[in-house]
Amino acid sequence: MTKKGLLIVISGPSGAGKGTICRHWLDKYPDFILSISATTRKARHNERDGINYFFKSHDEFISMIENNEFLEYAKVYDNYYGTPKKYVEDQLLSGKDVVLEIDIQGALQVKKSFKEGIFIFIAPPSMDELKKRIVGRGTENPDMIAKRFKSAFEELRYMEKYNYVVVNDIVEEAVEKIQAIVTAEKCRVDRNKELYTMIQGGV
Amino acid sequence: MTKKGLLIVISGPSGAGKGTICRHWLDKYPDFILSISATTRKARHNERDGINYFFKSHDEFISMIENNEFLEYAKVYDNYYGTPKKYVEDQLLSGKDVVLEIDIQGALQVKKSFKEGIFIFIAPPSMDELKKRIVGRGTENPDMIAKRFKSAFEELRYMEKYNYVVVNDIVEEAVEKIQAIVTAEKCRVDRNKELYTMIQGGV
Repeated sequence: MTKKGLLIVISGPSGAGKGTICRHWLDKYPDFILSISATTRKARHNERDGINYFFKSHDEFISMIENNEFLEYAKVYDNYYGTPKKYVEDQLLSGKDVVLEIDIQGALQVKKSFKEGIFIFIAPPSMDELKKRIVGRGTENPDMIAKRFKSAFEELRYMEKYNYVVVNDIVEEAVEKIQAIVTAEKCRVDRNKELYTMIQGGV
Repeated sequence: MTKKGLLIVISGPSGAGKGTICRHWLDKYPDFILSISATTRKARHNERDGINYFFKSHDEFISMIENNEFLEYAKVYDNYYGTPKKYVEDQLLSGKDVVLEIDIQGALQVKKSFKEGIFIFIAPPSMDELKKRIVGRGTENPDMIAKRFKSAFEELRYMEKYNYVVVNDIVEEAVEKIQAIVTAEKCRVDRNKELYTMIQGGV
């Protein structure tokens, strides 16, 4: 029997650097499957269905919501985004470890239906540094920056809902910590109940 | 304020290889403090008090038991062996991580008074392999081998009382798993309650 994979949720406030960490982590350790989101927004010219996103019509998406087919979903401006349950579960059942990189509201939704997931909160080293990162993107006006900063500040208090916190000071170190967390979780006794029988079976 | 160190308990059945693993682990990662046991047995010529053991008279040891000064203790043939609480706690308070390498009965005693410890069960890859290792020591007669083997077999069922299980197939891999467990434990949210304030303090 194939052992079920782990669901690893990488989340944290905007500007903490979860995207950068995930990119570096999966480049270095390519055995993980990055979950694919569904969305109602139009595909850009270089995006492919089933690779970058599962592109859905508005009606399809709403019917998926009604059929409880999402681990989490949200409406951002005019478009819906969500994590289809089936894709994640198929990968886990085939023994693959699946990574979800999502915002805090999404992570809290996933936790409700998937308690055995590993919830990792990516924290900025300080609010000063977070501000620099948000400003450094250079894509947003002062109002938007202030809004993002305030929201990131408020989101810090959700840290306690997670299993682990990794401070994103040096990306390479944060990546190694995440990898260590996965290695450790695979050694948890409650994830290795079959070992007892296997070892005895060697007699 | 110095952050308190972690207590890491490495334990498992006789022949699983916990001694070998600890030696390799602490050679490679020398920041850990190996706990020093107290004993009533006589010091050998190359052993020094406070380095290899705390050597105690029978009366001193009994009085330490009565004063509840041990995390765990046991009588083996005519001698007492035990882990003095004070030494471990002093190291932890100074921020050092302390390693206890002890048998299963000892580990279960420690767990009663020290639930925040990290309990790692070292398992043999199979009972066949365990038998080979016990025989391979070449120091024991067939009766003793049979007795050790039976006891190791029975001890496997205590695995479920531990937090983690590491199969000792290849020593180097087992060592990296233990190190990953320690890294992960240091990232646990409940061990990082001060982070929330620290990050906000950066504003």
